[in-house]
Amino acid sequence: MTSSDLIALRRDFHRRPEPAWREFYTTARIVDELESRLDLDELHVGPDAIAGEHRLAVPDERDLEGWYQQARETDADEGVLERLEGGYTGAVAVLGQGEGPTVGLRVDIDGLPQAEADDQTHHPASAGFRSEHEGAMHACGHDAHTTIGIGVLEAIAESDFTGTLKVFFQPAEENIGGGKPMAESEHIEDVDQLLAVHVGLDHPTGEIVAGIDGFLAVSHLEATFIGEPSHAGAHPEAGRNAVQAMATAVQNLYAIPRHDDGATRVNAGIVEGGSASNIVPEHARVVAEVRGETTELMEYMYEKAERVFRNAAEMYDCEIDLEPGARAPSATSDPKLADIVANVAGETDGVERILERDDLGGSEDATYLMQAVQENGGQACYVGVGTDHPGGHHTSTFDVDEASIGHGVDVLAGAIERIGDEY
Amino acid sequence: MTSSDLIALRRDFHRRPEPAWREFYTTARIVDELESRLDLDELHVGPDAIAGEHRLAVPDERDLEGWYQQARETDADEGVLERLEGGYTGAVAVLGQGEGPTVGLRVDIDGLPQAEADDQTHHPASAGFRSEHEGAMHACGHDAHTTIGIGVLEAIAESDFTGTLKVFFQPAEENIGGGKPMAESEHIEDVDQLLAVHVGLDHPTGEIVAGIDGFLAVSHLEATFIGEPSHAGAHPEAGRNAVQAMATAVQNLYAIPRHDDGATRVNAGIVEGGSASNIVPEHARVVAEVRGETTELMEYMYEKAERVFRNAAEMYDCEIDLEPGARAPSATSDPKLADIVANVAGETDGVERILERDDLGGSEDATYLMQAVQENGGQACYVGVGTDHPGGHHTSTFDVDEASIGHGVDVLAGAIERIGDEY
Amino acid sequence: MTSSDLIALRRDFHRRPEPAWREFYTTARIVDELESRLDLDELHVGPDAIAGEHRLAVPDERDLEGWYQQARETDADEGVLERLEGGYTGAVAVLGQGEGPTVGLRVDIDGLPQAEADDQTHHPASAGFRSEHEGAMHACGHDAHTTIGIGVLEAIAESDFTGTLKVFFQPAEENIGGGKPMAESEHIEDVDQLLAVHVGLDHPTGEIVAGIDGFLAVSHLEATFIGEPSHAGAHPEAGRNAVQAMATAVQNLYAIPRHDDGATRVNAGIVEGGSASNIVPEHARVVAEVRGETTELMEYMYEKAERVFRNAAEMYDCEIDLEPGARAPSATSDPKLADIVANVAGETDGVERILERDDLGGSEDATYLMQAVQENGGQACYVGVGTDHPGGHHTSTFDVDEASIGHGVDVLAGAIERIGDEY
Amino acid sequence: MTSSDLIALRRDFHRRPEPAWREFYTTARIVDELESRLDLDELHVGPDAIAGEHRLAVPDERDLEGWYQQARETDADEGVLERLEGGYTGAVAVLGQGEGPTVGLRVDIDGLPQAEADDQTHHPASAGFRSEHEGAMHACGHDAHTTIGIGVLEAIAESDFTGTLKVFFQPAEENIGGGKPMAESEHIEDVDQLLAVHVGLDHPTGEIVAGIDGFLAVSHLEATFIGEPSHAGAHPEAGRNAVQAMATAVQNLYAIPRHDDGATRVNAGIVEGGSASNIVPEHARVVAEVRGETTELMEYMYEKAERVFRNAAEMYDCEIDLEPGARAPSATSDPKLADIVANVAGETDGVERILERDDLGGSEDATYLMQAVQENGGQACYVGVGTDHPGGHHTSTFDVDEASIGHGVDVLAGAIERIGDEY
Repeated sequence: MTSSDLIALRRDFHRRPEPAWREFYTTARIVDELESRLDLDELHVGPDAIAGEHRLAVPDERDLEGWYQQARETDADEGVLERLEGGYTGAVAVLGQGEGPTVGLRVDIDGLPQAEADDQTHHPASAGFRSEHEGAMHACGHDAHTTIGIGVLEAIAESDFTGTLKVFFQPAEENIGGGKPMAESEHIEDVDQLLAVHVGLDHPTGEIVAGIDGFLAVSHLEATFIGEPSHAGAHPEAGRNAVQAMATAVQNLYAIPRHDDGATRVNAGIVEGGSASNIVPEHARVVAEVRGETTELMEYMYEKAERVFRNAAEMYDCEIDLEPGARAPSATSDPKLADIVANVAGETDGVERILERDDLGGSEDATYLMQAVQENGGQACYVGVGTDHPGGHHTSTFDVDEASIGHGVDVLAGAIERIGDEY
Repeated sequence: MTSSDLIALRRDFHRRPEPAWREFYTTARIVDELESRLDLDELHVGPDAIAGEHRLAVPDERDLEGWYQQARETDADEGVLERLEGGYTGAVAVLGQGEGPTVGLRVDIDGLPQAEADDQTHHPASAGFRSEHEGAMHACGHDAHTTIGIGVLEAIAESDFTGTLKVFFQPAEENIGGGKPMAESEHIEDVDQLLAVHVGLDHPTGEIVAGIDGFLAVSHLEATFIGEPSHAGAHPEAGRNAVQAMATAVQNLYAIPRHDDGATRVNAGIVEGGSASNIVPEHARVVAEVRGETTELMEYMYEKAERVFRNAAEMYDCEIDLEPGARAPSATSDPKLADIVANVAGETDGVERILERDDLGGSEDATYLMQAVQENGGQACYVGVGTDHPGGHHTSTFDVDEASIGHGVDVLAGAIERIGDEY
Repeated sequence: MTSSDLIALRRDFHRRPEPAWREFYTTARIVDELESRLDLDELHVGPDAIAGEHRLAVPDERDLEGWYQQARETDADEGVLERLEGGYTGAVAVLGQGEGPTVGLRVDIDGLPQAEADDQTHHPASAGFRSEHEGAMHACGHDAHTTIGIGVLEAIAESDFTGTLKVFFQPAEENIGGGKPMAESEHIEDVDQLLAVHVGLDHPTGEIVAGIDGFLAVSHLEATFIGEPSHAGAHPEAGRNAVQAMATAVQNLYAIPRHDDGATRVNAGIVEGGSASNIVPEHARVVAEVRGETTELMEYMYEKAERVFRNAAEMYDCEIDLEPGARAPSATSDPKLADIVANVAGETDGVERILERDDLGGSEDATYLMQAVQENGGQACYVGVGTDHPGGHHTSTFDVDEASIGHGVDVLAGAIERIGDEY
Repeated sequence: MTSSDLIALRRDFHRRPEPAWREFYTTARIVDELESRLDLDELHVGPDAIAGEHRLAVPDERDLEGWYQQARETDADEGVLERLEGGYTGAVAVLGQGEGPTVGLRVDIDGLPQAEADDQTHHPASAGFRSEHEGAMHACGHDAHTTIGIGVLEAIAESDFTGTLKVFFQPAEENIGGGKPMAESEHIEDVDQLLAVHVGLDHPTGEIVAGIDGFLAVSHLEATFIGEPSHAGAHPEAGRNAVQAMATAVQNLYAIPRHDDGATRVNAGIVEGGSASNIVPEHARVVAEVRGETTELMEYMYEKAERVFRNAAEMYDCEIDLEPGARAPSATSDPKLADIVANVAGETDGVERILERDDLGGSEDATYLMQAVQENGGQACYVGVGTDHPGGHHTSTFDVDEASIGHGVDVLAGAIERIGDEY
């Protein structure tokens, strides 16, 4: 694919961001693109690409239905869409090129529930490819990842690589819902070497991080407080105030003691409660997450968070429903694969600086796939592709420098060829 | 109207609760009922019934539109509905019967954003007239009030009353949005005596409160916190967390010192914030209200609440947008009118006990109309009609004892006749 | 006693304020004054004046010992002091004047743990009788009450009153610790009419409140949080932070919902915790109080406060020791006694305005004595004597207008004479 | 010194723990021990040992006076004590042994304001050398450090070391008050190599950490809230509640967002406020500290903490006095010195395991002295001496395994000899 092909494709994905498990248009577009460009051995779509019973954090039916109908109003292939119905999104593409190792590449494809900036300093807005889905945005570069996945498949098809390439177009990374069902599918079982990729992460265009470590283990949890409503003027004492319980919980969640063994995180990312200004709130809800530099640290945070939630509820005589959400473990990049990536990057046009190692400082459910491969005796490596981004990840002004998409394709395809030679 | 007419009518209103400024079906049904039963002198509908520019707390267009379309799917008169479009609801009915005082009766007609109980111990559920509008409910008896308003008109039409009766079918009481625009309309100007009515309020069936006082002055306010999003795992320090600010505000709102001069109230009735579990929340919102036994006490609470909101925002480096909402003053019932009501009640079938005075302990924007009449030299009185109610006002199991609807009609119509005699 | 005698005596008490159960000098001075001026029938001192086993909120030995030794360094009578050792303070003086009713007068004698203002605009400072006990102060006028008690005894001794006068010099009103043991003593049993008195309460000099009601029922409670210390830098996670638990409790205490049935109060009056900036705090303590317009409302607050404390502790995995403290009930003034006071006040020099009734809005353990007398079939009345006070009660600039001391003596002695006539 | 000499000396220090700037007995005992055992070239005591004007966090006079008088009641030398009056504690001992480098050894000598355990499982209690100063304790092993300092001086005096040894007996480490004035004194100026030492830190007996890094930069700060008192029952609204402000601050302090660049810490180590249960608290105080893995991270925390304090005060209309307290920077151990320590440790009896590097994870004001030496072109190294400790540092059951005192003396004296050889 030419550089302008890659850019056009990325912009198409950018225009139609779909959050976790709602990647209907995105999956259909991937399938369409692959089928028109390549002669694949296998193309598993939707329920065939993932172990559906392991899906985590799936939205409710009404929500899924809204996004599904929206996809149906596009030119997406109806037949493909039908296979995705109910939130079975994603795809696995298999390209066989003779004897050799089975190399995997994992790219994630989902957008975020974040409104996109609309002023003319924001390039997607001024260049006309801003999100057309109000309140949703590709604010973490997965549009570029998806494009890279397609680009690498084509590059390998045109290369001397011998072996098998599997590209995992993974849904639902942002809510850590899709990594596990993909890692539980049969498709991962024969993968010998796995690469995963992320653009940006505060690395500028021209920089490659050969092997990323420092993934924070993460767990979501959702707390629902159920109290008792009452008229806030006439009988304030008769209510059991779920919003007071929630506010107490939020304050104390962020105040969980820091831990000497390493980094911890906590966030009350979504809160809501109450129904009218004159009713003592009967219900409230918090969608939270905790993280830790190790699984133990994450579990320390989880346990403390649970204690905070339960006692905040009890303090206001509220019941509480605490639902553990999706989780992702930690993982490390294998040094030999990282060396290959570094060496290839050193010979790639446009790459100006190579970091051997860096810490992610965030979480990723690619770790599920990395762990699965490593437990089977294989190797895994998470590669960073620098890109200038004006706003931070997950903010309304995030954007990628489109030049970096080509860097990603070149470095990854080069590394895959080299793996074919060396293993 | 017979007792079973009244009950059937009340159940129809109960089945279609419409919250503030969305009383499209309700208004159309009132108009239809009045036109089919009575020969009115005037019937002012929607924008003709209220001073539209004084409407407070009007929902956004999309919200109004949804409720409007829902009403259009019923058998409501299209012509009437069209006059209400945009949230101009309510009606004023005028019945002239010769020389005499102009007596007003104010009834409120809106429902609440409160889901209705659905088990068989809840009478509207078992008897088949539970709310058909999911998430909305007549949980404060305004369905009975509306029915009483129509019943009184018919009773007076059939009586010897000489004078003019004006019934104000007021929208948007629950968000104190409708009292002011109705009090600012020309229709209130010539009213000599005004009665208002409320069922229940913890008084059992058979009890009448001749004059209610102790209205709490009330003010709404809405706070929007605007921070800065960031990735909660990778850069927690880069965010400015609007939800932490909001939680701090909520905790300290309820902790505003009690006041020696009398009762105060505060409620954070609706809260919401954040967009995803892994994004440091950029925005949060609180819809709150404060009340006081006097206007001064309400203002004390308002000032303190403002201070809490501003400093909670500043603590997390968030901007804050503080919008003062609707307000309602206090008011008192005139003793002479209350005496009339008490005397009439003493002669009314089904009335077993009469309280001369009681405190509301809540707020009401009927006070706007009462004040307007009293400032013009007239009298006003707020009458309580006891009704057994299984659940408290504003809760999912609230219901009225339908026998009390007849009591309300009889006492109010009787009092209006007596006013005609005595003034 | 002349006006200047009264003033000199009050200033002596003012100079040596002694908080609850530490009134060693004060009691000895009362005894000395009474013995030198009057020929009493009985004078019960310390353990003979109160039912010692019912004392509440007694300080620890070291604390008592410090105040005791301080009193020994004055010219107070050693023999009297020895009878008070261990915190058995207070006195009951009995003056018999023949046949007639037994009338009681209760005055409280303790100071407050409040530093006194030291600038020249504060009269006790500029006139040279500021507190000599650092950190303690007569900031509620009990120095004037004690003086009035002595003045009334002398006035009655010189009057035509027939009957018996008992003056209860009650210790430990401020921590509601002394009312109960005095009410449990035998001395109250034969009292037919009881008067109690308070100066100030926002009433100016020249105003008399004949009968005060609206005493808030009150209960103290003390919470001690016990966590686990750890090095705040090296192992923050190893601690169980008692100060975080305490802060959570304080925030939520003040946020206990207001109650529709009447006034409630809550205060976390004393807090302390931790030992060093680099140690995660192991312990914390809150001395709190709750009040209610009725005993039920006070108990509502108490129960909610307990729930807050327990769950705040549990949230931080701390143990908690919750000690219920002293309590005082509500009470009302008998109208017939209030009428007598009003009538006498109307004839008293310096009295310019008489209020028949007023609400205290605070608490008082005189209510124990009032209840005891009323339960025995007698009457009780709590009298307010207006005095201009520059600062509020319990603040560093509180002071009394010494002219009001004479008003108190005249009105109370006059009322006692009249009681002797009428009963 | 024999092993039993060292143990006896350590127990004597343990029995008389003296917190920061109150090390009167301790300093006198050091002087006495050194003078009786050694022929020193110089012995600088108190104001001669430190740059007094740079002292930080000095207690108030009354506090110092109490500890001073307590020391005077022991057998400590009066003449020495007099030189220390006013809190000028500590000593610098200089032992010249011919040509060669000037090697410094820094040991800290202060105890903690922490009560010591008193049950028989706590060795100092069962063996009869528990703290005799109620509420104070050697809970961080500075008694062992002091003993090691004396032991090393004697060991070097008996060795072949050529050069000069200076031992800095530093006061006030725990409140980071003494490091700076010692680093500002002239005594540090000619030091070529500096060793510092700490026992324990979760390393067991027999383990030596050759070079410790990872000192957290630290800053203290003290916040005093000043509100307005009022009677909590009669006029709750008239107060401005300093304790509510303080509780809000504490909750939000601990909730300052974690930082991606590294470890941060915060602790509200001491809190206090209010004066009586029935007075709305006029004042409250928090003694807090913040730390960071780098100075920038510490400053991030400091700035956020300040924002929290100021807005919590403003929320309750309180004034606030924010006093920045003592600070200590970060520092690193020089590899060459650490190598020498590791080599010597490898040849030392009782040492079973050597760690080349470890992170402190806490703070230390030895960093002031290390920085001063390194800025002068010298080297510094912070050595860890493992010791089994039943309870954690800064807890009531902390104790050292006395066998490790000998290890400390041997390793440090050996390293000093080797430095004499190699530099």
